[in-house]
This record gives sequence, C-alpha cells and structure tokens, in this order.
Amino acid sequence: MVTRIGIHASVETLFPPTVLVDELADVDPEVTVVTSDDLDDVDALVTFAYDDAFLDADLEWIHSVQSGVDRFPFDDLEAAGIRLTNSTGTHGDSVGETVAGYMLSFARRLHAYRDQQAEKHWEWPAWDEPFTLAGSSLCVVGLGTLGQGIAARADALGMDVVGVKRTPTPVDHVDTVYPSPDLHEAIADAKFVALAVPLTDDTAGMIGEAELDAMRDDAVLVNVARGPVVDQDALVDALEADDLAGAALDVFETEPLPEDSPLWEMDEVVVTPHAAAATRDYPRRMAALVRENVRRIAEGERLANGVV
Amino acid sequence: MVTRIGIHASVETLFPPTVLVDELADVDPEVTVVTSDDLDDVDALVTFAYDDAFLDADLEWIHSVQSGVDRFPFDDLEAAGIRLTNSTGTHGDSVGETVAGYMLSFARRLHAYRDQQAEKHWEWPAWDEPFTLAGSSLCVVGLGTLGQGIAARADALGMDVVGVKRTPTPVDHVDTVYPSPDLHEAIADAKFVALAVPLTDDTAGMIGEAELDAMRDDAVLVNVARGPVVDQDALVDALEADDLAGAALDVFETEPLPEDSPLWEMDEVVVTPHAAAATRDYPRRMAALVRENVRRIAEGERLANGVV
Repeated sequence: MVTRIGIHASVETLFPPTVLVDELADVDPEVTVVTSDDLDDVDALVTFAYDDAFLDADLEWIHSVQSGVDRFPFDDLEAAGIRLTNSTGTHGDSVGETVAGYMLSFARRLHAYRDQQAEKHWEWPAWDEPFTLAGSSLCVVGLGTLGQGIAARADALGMDVVGVKRTPTPVDHVDTVYPSPDLHEAIADAKFVALAVPLTDDTAGMIGEAELDAMRDDAVLVNVARGPVVDQDALVDALEADDLAGAALDVFETEPLPEDSPLWEMDEVVVTPHAAAATRDYPRRMAALVRENVRRIAEGERLANGVV
Repeated sequence: MVTRIGIHASVETLFPPTVLVDELADVDPEVTVVTSDDLDDVDALVTFAYDDAFLDADLEWIHSVQSGVDRFPFDDLEAAGIRLTNSTGTHGDSVGETVAGYMLSFARRLHAYRDQQAEKHWEWPAWDEPFTLAGSSLCVVGLGTLGQGIAARADALGMDVVGVKRTPTPVDHVDTVYPSPDLHEAIADAKFVALAVPLTDDTAGMIGEAELDAMRDDAVLVNVARGPVVDQDALVDALEADDLAGAALDVFETEPLPEDSPLWEMDEVVVTPHAAAATRDYPRRMAALVRENVRRIAEGERLANGVV
C-alpha cells in the first residue's frame, strides 16, 4: 500500500519536481518533493538519479523518469525488496520527431543555413546538395518504442524504411525487418541509419569500423540509442575519411561530449544535448505512469514497465 | 514547331545547364546552352533570368524554371507572340519538407542546439521549451501546390491543420478551409502560420501589424511565399516586442537580406537563402515539364503551366 510518494529532487534535471506534484494532485497517496536525506515514511519514489540511500529507506517501489535504468543496481534492489519501473513507451513521438527533424535538416540543409546565418552569409546550396526524404531510404536499428516512432514518421514522409530487430517479426511502417545477425545487409543500402537500440551487453559498441564500412559513403548516421553503442573513434575516422557523409548524435560514450572531440566542429555532424525525448508534456506523461502503478499496487496487479 | 531549345546560361543559378541538356537527350529538338547574345535559330528558351533580348529573338515559347514569373513583362511577351510557362506544381514535396523541417526545428530546438554546438556548449533546454508537433496546430495560408505539400506533411506528423484559400473548397489534409476575408480568424489559434501564397496585388503586404497582432504571442511564422508578402518592419517589431515567438523565413522583401537587418541575429528567427524548393532532382523535373510541352506544341495542344 502506497501512502506517500516522494518526488526526488533530482528530477529537476528534466522538469521542476513541483510540476509533477501538481499533476498528481488527484491520487490518494500524499505526494511531496524529497531528497535522499529525507526518505522517512516514503513508500514510493519517483527519481532521475540513483542514490545508495534508496536501499536503506523503507521503499516499496522506485520509478525512474528515464527509460534507461542501467545506473540502478538491480540485484541490490531485489534483495531490498524494492520494485523498479522505468519510463519506456513514452518517448516514441518526441524521439521520432527529433529524428525526423535531423533527417530533414540534412536533406533540406537547415543546419548548414544556420551556420551561414551566424556569419550573416547568404548563399544558395550547391545544386546537388539538397534532396527530399520522399524516396530516400532509412534503416532503423532497434524497433522498440523509439524505433517504431521513428519508422512511423519516416514512412509518413515517403521514405523507404527497413529495420533491424532481434526477433524479426513484422512491424508497422517497416517494409523489411532483418534479424540482428543480418545488420550489415540491412544498413548497406540506406541513406540514413538510425540507432534506437536499448543499451545491453549485445548493443554496446555494436557500431564499429566494420559496420561503418558496410554503410554507404553518402550515408548519415543518427544515434538516439542510450550509451556507448557507437565506437566514437571509429566514427570520427569514418567521417574524416569521407566514408560517411554525416551524423546526428544525441548520445555519446561520455556526456557531455569532451571539448576536445573533433565531432563538435564537423560541419556535417549535428551534436545535441541528449534531449531527443524532451518535451514540456513530460511531467504529464510521468504522472500517467505513476497514477497507473499506484492503482495496480492498490489492486495487487503486476506493475506496468516493471524492471525489477 | 520547336526545332531548337536553348537552355539559357542563367539557369546556372539553380543547376548546371548541361545537366538539363543531358536530361533532354531524348527529345526531338536540338538542345543547347545559349546566352542572351546568341538566340539565333532558337525557338524555345528555358531560363531563370529575364532579358529584353528575348523579345527581339524569334522565340515561340519561354519556360521559366521558377514558379514565380513576376519579373517577366506579360504584355510585351504577348505582343511579341511569345508564350510563357512556369514551373508551378513541381515544388510541393521539397517545400513541404522544408517547412516540416522548420517546424520540427522549433519544436525539437534543433536550431538552438546548432547555436550551442558552435560554442561547444552542452546544455539541456529549459524543461518547457521542447514540444511535439503531434497535437500542435498549423494554419497554411495559400493552398496551391506548396500549401498542399505543407498540409500533407503536417497532417502526417499529427498536427491539427487549418488553411486559408480564396475559394474555400475542401482540401485534403486540411480540417477547415477559411475564405481569405476570414484570415484573422484562421490564424488566431495556430501555433504555426505558414505563408504559401503566390505574389499578387492581393497578397503583397498581406501580413502586416494587424495580422501579426491577430496571431498568438507564442506563434511561429513560416514564410515560403515569394516576394514582399510580409511587412518586414512590422515583423521585426512583433518579434522584438515578444508578440511573436519566432519565424522561419525563406523569402524577404529584398534578397539577399540586408546585412543590417536585425532578423539575422535573432535566436528564434531562422534565415535561409530562398532555397526551400531546392533539390538535386530539379533538372529532371524541369526536363519532364519541357518534354511534355514539346509534345503539346507538336500536337497543337494547349501548353501545361501556361502563364501568357
């Protein structure tokens, strides 16, 4: 039975904790903003950060406001009898739109014009630089919530979409679904390759020299997959050797991207601050997830988005 | 009867003239690159620029590689017995994608991140800045080829689309079509207002202080309508007074945009070099139009895209 929900102050990284308190005004448990030093009488915690203090508090349930929960110690939580849920399933539209925006930026040259604008420089692009996404090809690697959100928008914009998935069952908006072992074949013909896999032992470093080699020389790599999925040195090498035309990167091996990374200064590399999923609607979405699991706990049902 | 088609050197502004010569290798008339000083034996001319020398040459037909033909003297051409055709109908996808890219840039903050990248600055956006186009509203002013291309993509991205059209007949992908006199009502509730009208006496200056006042304070104006449709001083005033949240501008009263225009340096104004329609597929599209009208002239049919 959850009688008091703490909104951990660390969610401030994504939005003001009090906004989520307000969104949850309709639930039965008391909802307050808390810190790691102040977890008395808190049964459930909604948090961005992980803190070992969580293990010693009398928590029944922790909800992560991100999809990625690799920072949480699953075994320790289980031993402490604490259930963990995440926020997967909520970012398909925001991430899908961010990736559509990246691709349109490359096709319509919007990032290049923004650079020109900073110099008050007015110049048409070379005639054969701009193109349309309609008729262009995309391979989406990872077809969970994010990958499906990307594929839906690419299809709506008239792109030819293929994808890669561990179990190659049909997916809406994807013409051909390849199994993971056929990754090289799947990415070989694509103008855009979008990475949307979760971070697991299988996906860490999955895009290295061989995969970048398998891609077209005029391909653009888009990475919204959390964590070190792309070998960053190999990526820099491929871009410098013109074996890859460009990249849009929301996620890096280390964040922030180190100041001495050559990726910052490459014209055809778009660097964003890991905010592909960001939206002002985020607190409302978190409230919906929390509200549903408060109900499930009260009814004794299995939690939605359960991880531990 | 067209026996020799000249590709005027001025099309170089958009693409290399020889590329169009190659694309037209299959037509019966001879096709060569020409200048204004060298129009002997040319029956038909494909051109970007207008030159008075065209009137004195023995031309039967001029094709403009742009949609806008306001630089051409219609009466003089008619008096000289020269027919004029334009390239309307070919830019719906490219301009539609550019406008989708602009809107995604504002929603997903991509232009702001590009500015940060130039400073090697890594920072999340304010929590309530990013939003999704899904569920946002758009008013498309002008529902010809460009407006329909914009509306189709906005609808595909989940936006609520209304539009304005002289004759308010139903248009695909547009929920409500307002007649021109109801412009203020049409734009009043829209997050984005996209201008895609042709330049006529009615549309010149149609967006002034009153129209900018009628828009939401958090609205973003998108202009891909050729020529002085927007009163630029009123636009600057509205942006400086925070009566408008932003603008994406492909077209200006004068081009290039003067160096002393405050629009260059506004964070929430995106300035592009009148290339919303640009695509490497342009020569192929021009060839298709020219090929069709060569056929129609041979058959004695009415020309496609006839202006004069």
